[in-house]
This record gives sequence, structure tokens and C-alpha cells, in this order.
Amino acid sequence: MKLTFKTIIQNYFHRFHADVSMAAHSVTSKGWQSEQPPEFYRLWYIIGGEGGLKIKDQSYELKPGRLLLLPPGAQQFFGPLEGQSVSLYWCNFRAPIGDMDLFDILNLKVSIELNDQERKHIETLFRQLIDAYQSTTLTRGLRVRAALFEIVAYYLDYCGFNEDMFLQIEPITKIDHVIQYIEEHIGEQISVDELAKLVFLHPNYFIGYFKNIVGHAPTQYINIRKMERAKTLLENMDIQISDVARQIGLQNHYLSRLFKQYTGLTPKRYRQIYIYNTENEDKLEQELI
Amino acid sequence: MKLTFKTIIQNYFHRFHADVSMAAHSVTSKGWQSEQPPEFYRLWYIIGGEGGLKIKDQSYELKPGRLLLLPPGAQQFFGPLEGQSVSLYWCNFRAPIGDMDLFDILNLKVSIELNDQERKHIETLFRQLIDAYQSTTLTRGLRVRAALFEIVAYYLDYCGFNEDMFLQIEPITKIDHVIQYIEEHIGEQISVDELAKLVFLHPNYFIGYFKNIVGHAPTQYINIRKMERAKTLLENMDIQISDVARQIGLQNHYLSRLFKQYTGLTPKRYRQIYIYNTENEDKLEQELI
Repeated sequence: MKLTFKTIIQNYFHRFHADVSMAAHSVTSKGWQSEQPPEFYRLWYIIGGEGGLKIKDQSYELKPGRLLLLPPGAQQFFGPLEGQSVSLYWCNFRAPIGDMDLFDILNLKVSIELNDQERKHIETLFRQLIDAYQSTTLTRGLRVRAALFEIVAYYLDYCGFNEDMFLQIEPITKIDHVIQYIEEHIGEQISVDELAKLVFLHPNYFIGYFKNIVGHAPTQYINIRKMERAKTLLENMDIQISDVARQIGLQNHYLSRLFKQYTGLTPKRYRQIYIYNTENEDKLEQELI
Repeated sequence: MKLTFKTIIQNYFHRFHADVSMAAHSVTSKGWQSEQPPEFYRLWYIIGGEGGLKIKDQSYELKPGRLLLLPPGAQQFFGPLEGQSVSLYWCNFRAPIGDMDLFDILNLKVSIELNDQERKHIETLFRQLIDAYQSTTLTRGLRVRAALFEIVAYYLDYCGFNEDMFLQIEPITKIDHVIQYIEEHIGEQISVDELAKLVFLHPNYFIGYFKNIVGHAPTQYINIRKMERAKTLLENMDIQISDVARQIGLQNHYLSRLFKQYTGLTPKRYRQIYIYNTENEDKLEQELI
């Protein structure tokens, strides 16, 4: 997958906060009802009964084992089949990030169908979410989001990411060009002016434009990429640490300082831990099972 | 527990973001080592071996089944017992919230001891955290934080919250006074000026002061409290919705609008869902088991 898409999505989820406004179990037996476009994302997991949902011009079946992620702002029209009632776990949440919502960047499915094992897993997570939401413990904010993040990650991994899912909107095409350029010149000094020129924007405007999509200011992003590159290089035993520094265009001592800021470790210690973790992964699995 | 403490802590965790800079499994057999005060929180879970840790003037044992949360910025000195090596899961994370860190507000334990069942649970969560950290999936940011939030919530709930844990710092005493006042006057119009006067601060300065600790500007906080009060009142069937509005000092139509913004539901629908969830909780548990 293209680095741009990876970067945008990973940084998007890095900033993903989510504010759960309500989580519950409901049963609806009323006929079809229409909802004003809500400003919330809605996550539904159908436990029992059958029904239907219409968003824009698309229709979806509501059936046990279906997990749905409804986009904010779209008119929704839904109800049970005649004589049935639909039982579901649900939650509403806000997730404002920059100016974009998930459905602005990705051509995401609205509904996925889970098998028996997956259903158990999602049911457990929803129970955790609803229990945490209804509880009065002081840590409920942490527990609610922990469960929600798991469900959302599950949903997205299930959909599977591929480049076709990315909507070809102009800002992404522009940023793609910039990110590509940074990768190719990571060993050099890169100025914000030269990046802004690439996409014909004024440097001052460019900084906010970049930050809104990527989640970091350009210079901050360049440093992050240098550190990520440093990590990959350090994982290869054959490369001297001074060579790592050279390859990302930093002085030795500046690499050490930046790397420690970024990971909390010196480059040498990072390498040791990496080797240890790689060599002991299998052994450890056995110890613990 | 006093509402102020509850409010401050709940809002703190509501804003809790956490940026995991590294997560791994390590074994250390080197003698005692000193660490510069790191700017990270550190979470350690000891799997094997014994050793010791010194922070400031306090000493802690490192033993299998110990879970430690180390405060940022404190000089740390640690190592294994002679001839032993300490095997641990660990992660470093940043969690900047306002100007405060957790240890600024709470007199938190640095180390807790888990029983067998608890160890299994924490080990599983740490494996999830480390696996997610080492993975390259696009949703790793969500999964890493989901696991971290669970571990932190677990740690804090284990410590148990009580008022004695709160450090009596001046800002909290001041805000306590304001929050108390808001509760007692929730049915009235409350102005920022009158709140600022209570604590002898200039209104402009007061707004930032309040927000830094509580996480919301005063007017926003007042509305949240009104909505929380509305929820509690709605959960009592005997109170008419117009009475709910009156008790929180809002016009009927304004209650509906604000409540819908806040929860995504009308007050009436909230009441229905609440009744349904309360009545069906036991039934549902049985269905699912």
C-alpha cells in the first residue's frame, strides 16, 4: 500500500479520540422510522430479529450477526420486518478529527456479517462497552473507549484496507506527492518552503493544510519519519549506528537525542531490545501457554 | 466521594489520550542502573526473576506478579538481585493533559501485587499491547491504546479511589468550591462572572484556569452538568419531562435540543431506553450465556 494512505490512516487513528454519547441494548418493534441526519457515528450490532435500513439510496438487511457502522450526517430510515422486533446493541459516538470523518477518506462498508466465533467476540466487547458506559466508576471513560477502539479496529480490519478504498479527493493527491518527496529525500535537509512549492501552496497555508490531513506539522512529520527510518535501520545488525545517522541526514549526537525523545531509548538500547524480542518471541509464547 | 474529585478524575480520563512510544518484553541481568528522569510514564509487569527499584527515597521489590506504574520525571534506579535476571513486559507512554500528570493530583501507588487470576488477565492485555505495537496494521494505533487503557483502568481500580488519595493542591480546593456552587444552583442562570468572583479570580483568567483542571470551559461544564442531572431525573418515571426542564432551569424546547445534542436522543426516547435496559438486564444476561 502507498505510504501516503498508510500515513494518513495511521495518523488518523492516532488522533482518534471518540466521545461516546450513549451505549445501550434496545429492542424496536415499531414500524419504519426516519432519523434526522445525526452528527454521531452509530455502531449497531444485531442480536435478534430481522429488519431493514436505508441510508441515501442504499438498503441494508438487519439480521443477527450483522455489525453496522453508520456514517454521521446521513438520513437514516429503518425498522423491523412485519410482526418482528429487532434487538440490538448500539452506541453513538463523535470522532471529530481535523475536518474529516472516516467516510470522507474511505469508501467504507456500512455493514459486515460475522461468523459464530466473531459474534461471540463482538458480543463480549459490546457488553464491556455498555457495562462500562452504565457504570459510575471513575475509570469508565477509559474502559468505554478501550472497548469502542477494539470494536472499531475489528470492523476496519474486517473490511480490509486496500488502495481502492481511498476516495480520490484532491487534498490526498496533493499530500501524496509531498509524502513521497519526503521519503526520497529523508537523508537530506528538507525545508517547508520546498514542500509547499511542490503543491503550489503558500508556505504558511501549506503548514495548516498538511497538519489537518496528516495530523502533524511538516517538520514534526519529517522528524517522525526519520525516527521510523532509524528504527528500521537499527533492526538490521549490519548497519553501524553512525551509518544510521548518516542515512537519515542527522549528526550522531542529534540522532541519539531525537531518538531518545521519540522512543525513550538510546539507539543502541533499541537495537538490543529488538534483537531480544525477535529471538525470544517463540520461546516466550511457550513459556506462557 | 466529593463531586469535585469525581469530576476532575472523570474528565481527566475523558481527555486521556496516551501516546505509546515503545512496548516490549525485556530481560535485564545487568547490575543496578540509573535512569535520567524520563518524560514518560512507564508501566512494568514482572514475569520472572527478582530485583529492586528505587524512586526518590522509596524502594520497591520487583517480583513476578507485580505491576508498576512509574511517574514521569522521577530519577529511577533499578536492577536484579545478585545472580538473577528480571524478565518483564513494559511500555512507555506520554499522557500530557492540561498541565497536570496523574501523580500531580493523586497520591497513587507505584506498585501493586496481583493474584493468579489477575496475572493471567494482565499478561493477556500486555501481550495484546506488545503484539499491536509490533504489528504494522493500520489500526494498530487503536489497538495499542485499547490495551493500554484497559491496563491503566485496571491499575487505578485496583488502587481504589478515595478522597484521601487526592493531593490537597490549591487549584483543586478552589475548583471544588466552584463545582459545589454549580450543583447547588443548577436550576438557575449561572454566570461565569459570579463563579470567578467565588474564587477571587478575574473572569478571563478564570475560564482558562477552570478548563485546565476540569477539561471544559465553565459554561460548557454547566451544560454538561444540566444534562447529567436531566438523565438522572428522566430515570425516575414519576417526574414529568416539563418538570425535568424546570429543575435544571431550561425551557422545554431548549432541554430537548441540548439533550439531543448531548446524547443523540430525545429525553422521551432516553427514558424508554433506560427503562428497557433496566428491566431486561437480567433476562438478557440469561439469553447470552
